[in-house]
Amino acid sequence: MDVRTLGVRAKAASFALMTMGTEQKNKILFAMADALESRTEAILSANEEDVVAAEKKGISKAMLDRLSLSPDRIADMANGLRDVAALPDPIGGADNMVRRPNGLLIAKRRVPLGVIAIIYEARPNVTADAAGLCIKSGNAVILRGGSEAIRTNIAVVRLMNAAGAEEGLPAGAIGLVEDTSRESATELMRLNEYVDVLIPRGGAGLIRSVVQNATVPVIETGLGNCHVYVDDEADLNMAERIIHNAKCSRPAVCNAAEKLLVARPVAKDFLENGLEQLRARGVELRGCEEACALIPWAVPANADDWFTEYDDLILAVKVVDGIDEAISWINGHGTRHSECIVTENYSKALRFMDEVDAAAVYVNASTRFTDGGEFGLGAEIGISTQKLHARGPMGLNELTSVKYCVFGNGQIR
Amino acid sequence: MDVRTLGVRAKAASFALMTMGTEQKNKILFAMADALESRTEAILSANEEDVVAAEKKGISKAMLDRLSLSPDRIADMANGLRDVAALPDPIGGADNMVRRPNGLLIAKRRVPLGVIAIIYEARPNVTADAAGLCIKSGNAVILRGGSEAIRTNIAVVRLMNAAGAEEGLPAGAIGLVEDTSRESATELMRLNEYVDVLIPRGGAGLIRSVVQNATVPVIETGLGNCHVYVDDEADLNMAERIIHNAKCSRPAVCNAAEKLLVARPVAKDFLENGLEQLRARGVELRGCEEACALIPWAVPANADDWFTEYDDLILAVKVVDGIDEAISWINGHGTRHSECIVTENYSKALRFMDEVDAAAVYVNASTRFTDGGEFGLGAEIGISTQKLHARGPMGLNELTSVKYCVFGNGQIR
Repeated sequence: MDVRTLGVRAKAASFALMTMGTEQKNKILFAMADALESRTEAILSANEEDVVAAEKKGISKAMLDRLSLSPDRIADMANGLRDVAALPDPIGGADNMVRRPNGLLIAKRRVPLGVIAIIYEARPNVTADAAGLCIKSGNAVILRGGSEAIRTNIAVVRLMNAAGAEEGLPAGAIGLVEDTSRESATELMRLNEYVDVLIPRGGAGLIRSVVQNATVPVIETGLGNCHVYVDDEADLNMAERIIHNAKCSRPAVCNAAEKLLVARPVAKDFLENGLEQLRARGVELRGCEEACALIPWAVPANADDWFTEYDDLILAVKVVDGIDEAISWINGHGTRHSECIVTENYSKALRFMDEVDAAAVYVNASTRFTDGGEFGLGAEIGISTQKLHARGPMGLNELTSVKYCVFGNGQIR
Repeated sequence: MDVRTLGVRAKAASFALMTMGTEQKNKILFAMADALESRTEAILSANEEDVVAAEKKGISKAMLDRLSLSPDRIADMANGLRDVAALPDPIGGADNMVRRPNGLLIAKRRVPLGVIAIIYEARPNVTADAAGLCIKSGNAVILRGGSEAIRTNIAVVRLMNAAGAEEGLPAGAIGLVEDTSRESATELMRLNEYVDVLIPRGGAGLIRSVVQNATVPVIETGLGNCHVYVDDEADLNMAERIIHNAKCSRPAVCNAAEKLLVARPVAKDFLENGLEQLRARGVELRGCEEACALIPWAVPANADDWFTEYDDLILAVKVVDGIDEAISWINGHGTRHSECIVTENYSKALRFMDEVDAAAVYVNASTRFTDGGEFGLGAEIGISTQKLHARGPMGLNELTSVKYCVFGNGQIR
């Protein structure tokens, strides 16, 4: 099915989903979950074909791991759908209602966005997660995954649509672009007639391509050049725990720390004594001149390092004068994702929160908490690093828009 | 000053505005207002040059009227700035704050968008209105008005910047693109490094050009092919008042009705007796075949008419079976701006509100109420007809984003 046809079908389905009740949407999600589990073998066999083809193409081990499914991973996908079913339905209620002087009653009701397109890379679990979140929030979805996972995605989407249809999921509600050429992605980015928002999930190259080429509204996600700033009034033991966790607990994700800034007064103490856990874990340190002088195992950072998201066990370290330089450095080099100060000073903590421009700003906690689950949203479809529409982790609420419903009794202006 | 330099300066100014207190922002707005009034002569003289040049180019009377300023219009611009100063400051507070099981305290605070670019056409009052709303919401602004008003805009922006600077408005906070070529507009649309959102205000051609060319995030505004549906259970006297008001009270604005749908059971009665006020006002009616048979003074509508925003004293009239056809017709032909049903039937009123996809849906009231002032927002910077970020009239709140502020005491994940 071509991209335009998927758009036509998704738009038609979106009108049925727009007014569908919560119970029915939940039944659809449970049916989809049950189908994934009961047909685990079919998914695994499609996935095996993808894995063999990917191995032949020689993709990286990390990517191969993300691509490969197991019965446990499929059970996780199914349980993810059930978890979404258990979340409150964001649709239909009003954020507020006012009575105007002329008697008009105006309710600002929450409605679905309509048709959400998602372009993503190798992970097939996104296929089920994204479909579940979109259906629960009353949206139709057009999925365009990477070529490596295409057989798996086809199997998963067919199962979900067939099982959902038995509970009333409209045809076309979950569309999959089976043509994984660059052209199909570009066509989806320009399908303004049918697509209400496009969410790219993937690396810097994908995000850049979408921003450059899309004419549909876009939510940028997930680039994270995150800093931890260790203030001269920090609890240095806490700082050590936080930078270790922020760098090492999962280095390939966007909320991992990529940069360490240390205030000069504590630089010698912290850099000489606070980085042992990082060394033990095998983290490569790239330092400014001052940092390199204090850390024998560090190598010099170059100008690009300060802007780079490594997604790996690498950390660049810079000595700064103090909070002023830290804030201006972060605002000049960060990707406005997650930024942290470690300090016991009250006023500096508040200043950092006020003046650092990022989706999430932390005092004395690891940047790794920037996540829909950790923030209490229940689930997330991505982390927005733009300011328009949504910022930070996006849950069900972020997949909605509003509609002003005006109740009159003959008012004219 | 070139577009990129304006961007650099606006971004720098936006950091100062981000944390500026309410009192100071209000002082700046009052100083700007006072300057416009005390220097009325300077503005009028610049405006006179624009008007003379525009007359030579032979622009339409309607456009000339929008371009021309008078002492009263300048006083209105000044009072608009004072009205914005009186509105609550949307910045700094939190929409909500939660305590997570691990003790993290997470506040979702409201912050400025950063740098807002606005591309608009001939009306110079937009220059002051937009600057006022942006400053009050802590944003820097880059204005790019039409060439017809350029001398007026230069005078207004210089006065506002000079007066604002005395109260601490940072340099570059109100930028004006003085080069009114197409190239400067395109450059602004692609200034991703500095522009957080672009709001086009103008006709269909401008909106389309922005959607096609912009790589910065955009909020589409103001296209309105609005319908009034007169149900077979309508109070026909009320319907007559509503369609007259919706069409005639200000035909050139986007919330004016462009289409009248009438349910067949009441078509003869309503079309023969309910349109006298429209005829008296000189409204041209373009009808479907059935409508033309009932209205001797109507001319046949063609296929394009049903998609056209006339912005003029023209109304297309169509007879429909009833509410089902009305809803699907509106969803298939409207611009998702403002749609109205006139009915006394409770269930049909609710269905129309649920199923019509538009920024504002009315029961028994004129579409003309879709307006920031009428909705109680205090002021508006435009009416969004997209679903992302904001929908319907946009006030100060719609010029903000959020920032998650996370207060920890050593939490790691």
